Amino acid sequence: MRMLDLIEKKKQGGALNKAEIRFFVDGFTCGEIPDYQASALLMAICLVGMTSEETVALTDCMAHSGDILDLSDVDGVTADKHSTGGVGDKTTLVVAPVCAAMGLKIAKMSGRGLGHTGGTIDKLESIPGFRTSLSEAEFKTQVNAIGLAVTGQTGMLAPADKKIYALRDVTATVNSIPLIASSIMSKKLAAGAQNIVLDVKCGSGALLPNADDARALAEQMVAIGKTCGRGIAAVLTNMDVPLGTHIGNALEVTEACAVLQNGGAADLREISLTLSAYLIAMSLEKTYEEAYRAAEQMLESGAAFRKLQEMVAAQGGDARVLESETCFLSARMQAEVCAEQTGYIAHMHTQKIGESASLLGAGREKKTDVIDYAAGIVLHKKTGDFVNRGDVLAVLYASCAERLQAGKQRFLDALVFSNTKPEPQALCFGTVE
Amino acid sequence: MRMLDLIEKKKQGGALNKAEIRFFVDGFTCGEIPDYQASALLMAICLVGMTSEETVALTDCMAHSGDILDLSDVDGVTADKHSTGGVGDKTTLVVAPVCAAMGLKIAKMSGRGLGHTGGTIDKLESIPGFRTSLSEAEFKTQVNAIGLAVTGQTGMLAPADKKIYALRDVTATVNSIPLIASSIMSKKLAAGAQNIVLDVKCGSGALLPNADDARALAEQMVAIGKTCGRGIAAVLTNMDVPLGTHIGNALEVTEACAVLQNGGAADLREISLTLSAYLIAMSLEKTYEEAYRAAEQMLESGAAFRKLQEMVAAQGGDARVLESETCFLSARMQAEVCAEQTGYIAHMHTQKIGESASLLGAGREKKTDVIDYAAGIVLHKKTGDFVNRGDVLAVLYASCAERLQAGKQRFLDALVFSNTKPEPQALCFGTVE
Repeated sequence: MRMLDLIEKKKQGGALNKAEIRFFVDGFTCGEIPDYQASALLMAICLVGMTSEETVALTDCMAHSGDILDLSDVDGVTADKHSTGGVGDKTTLVVAPVCAAMGLKIAKMSGRGLGHTGGTIDKLESIPGFRTSLSEAEFKTQVNAIGLAVTGQTGMLAPADKKIYALRDVTATVNSIPLIASSIMSKKLAAGAQNIVLDVKCGSGALLPNADDARALAEQMVAIGKTCGRGIAAVLTNMDVPLGTHIGNALEVTEACAVLQNGGAADLREISLTLSAYLIAMSLEKTYEEAYRAAEQMLESGAAFRKLQEMVAAQGGDARVLESETCFLSARMQAEVCAEQTGYIAHMHTQKIGESASLLGAGREKKTDVIDYAAGIVLHKKTGDFVNRGDVLAVLYASCAERLQAGKQRFLDALVFSNTKPEPQALCFGTVE
Repeated sequence: MRMLDLIEKKKQGGALNKAEIRFFVDGFTCGEIPDYQASALLMAICLVGMTSEETVALTDCMAHSGDILDLSDVDGVTADKHSTGGVGDKTTLVVAPVCAAMGLKIAKMSGRGLGHTGGTIDKLESIPGFRTSLSEAEFKTQVNAIGLAVTGQTGMLAPADKKIYALRDVTATVNSIPLIASSIMSKKLAAGAQNIVLDVKCGSGALLPNADDARALAEQMVAIGKTCGRGIAAVLTNMDVPLGTHIGNALEVTEACAVLQNGGAADLREISLTLSAYLIAMSLEKTYEEAYRAAEQMLESGAAFRKLQEMVAAQGGDARVLESETCFLSARMQAEVCAEQTGYIAHMHTQKIGESASLLGAGREKKTDVIDYAAGIVLHKKTGDFVNRGDVLAVLYASCAERLQAGKQRFLDALVFSNTKPEPQALCFGTVE
């Protein structure tokens, strides 16, 4: 078999068989296939596409390129949750404790933020003392003991995906639905959980702004999961406006805690309950409505909040900060952003809001940047709200005046005002099961 | 400017401007842009295409990546000829002396053969003593003195094309019409001649088997040449059957000499006269018919043959071999290939015929292979001929029995027999001016 022939076949619109895909994945991962041939194939895949069989084969080969976490000795139904990423997306901090409080075993491996989107690991690390590098044994022991653990991804989880993704990142081949689907699902399969719920976001703050693309991605990921024997559902959710009101790591933990204490932003609560309900329904053989009501009870009773406190304590974190916003936040400087005109907020370009938070210090432009956990944004107004000139739109938090200024400028760039009230947007656009 | 943005733009179907194309060509040639980004862009170009402006810009940037031969001190109209390559294609050995005998200044840089196609430099090197590495001064002096010189390409002629081609060769990105057009034309522009005739071949022995593709290539190359101020014409010729009867380096020199001595194969004579006529017409302001008749006279009078003898002598070759086939050929072994059935030859898969010659020792599988100048094939029958079982189809020449056997097998694989006489094929499918 020759890589040259595989590239030619794909270029001409052909479908690669499983042996050919394995030849590529294994050869590239071990360094026998050079970068320049891999990038030519990846570009051909971006432009020609892949069949569902090819996408499943690529996912499977990448999942098996490293360790597959064996959760068979965990007592109960293991479950996992994944989001394609957005701004203010702290649903994992609500969904995981809600489901764990319902008796599901949440074994979750999470990533760090990059660019305009955040990552659950960064958010949890804003809690003093919290450890995100659990050994496999620690991870499984904690899942068994309290039903909930969140750890960072190890380098041996789908190393082929890691190497292929690094090449895609520098060759403009990220934006391919089958490549995104197989990248995400290879890690989910390797992470070992039986049931998976996917939050596929679309809108101006999402990886895929277009709703049709987001649906296609959801369908491909669900098809991969089912073919590989997992319980799986995807929810298409709105990321054309930030989720909730808090953006930034410690800020997002406090907002998640507010929802877990039966308060907080309505949109964050609603999407978290929806995602939880799908995971509970497929894991405990309930109807969606029963599962949704059960998830609500976990918020109302405080059981979910106690589960998060348990997890934070188990992973070495100071659980006291979860109860009091004031003993957590510590940004050196803050500034109000006020409306420069009167009218409705017609649109918030959500990627720019995320970039604003990143400029304030809450995110990374490149992987080696250091995060300021206290930095971020608290929104006072969102898309659809009417504001008078001079009203406070948001409060920004940062460590210095330069960052405040840069963040403020990008924040204002993100806003579009109008004299007419915009159409209200749905929170969810549909589900794929 | 970032290479990543250029790749993304092309992937999304956009056109790169001249500054962006220069950024790519210069950056890749000097090693600042890595192979894996270049191959991603090349694959996107293969699948998305390039506008005529992009193709001209790419050609111009590659032509100017090294030396541009300055022929302004050559006295007279400088002219060049290029073929996209085929089997038995020795037209340069006829066209160049015919045009030089008419007073044109033929300053030709040629390449070596690879795969199933031959190269003019290899053919000339079959003449004992012939030197194909002229210095620039020697080359220009000889063109001025006798009107004709053929030399190998120097490494400093379009080095960007050389580097890009090497990458295309290993990433399945050779087969793109704008990339082929810009590669060929960058070398023609750098070689400096005022007028250019292109022989664009199509059929089973050509780089582009399909006639529509060949026409598109011809149109793009002619457009590039005109935009860059050159006189240019392209002739679409048949390569669905070998040209003439002789395939192999010394064998092809003898066949060209036969045509130059007013004999030889009719198809080779006809195509050589057609190519010569276009070059003569545009260089000497004659009608095509006048030019064609003048070219014929150069064969009939022996003037063209004497011009080839002059050139061979000027470049150190033993011109006596041109007059007598017997003092040239020296293959150690030969074998007849006889028909195994009775019927018409319906088709000769011409690439396989070229591969047969290569297996006999006349060509190279890889660049470092050594050529046996005496090896090759003399066809006794061609497509459309009726043969009886046992008739001699061809005589094969090689240095050993193993090569004879391998060449014979591939030769027989190339033939398709039929009970009905196939439709005759045109020699030329049209011209682009």
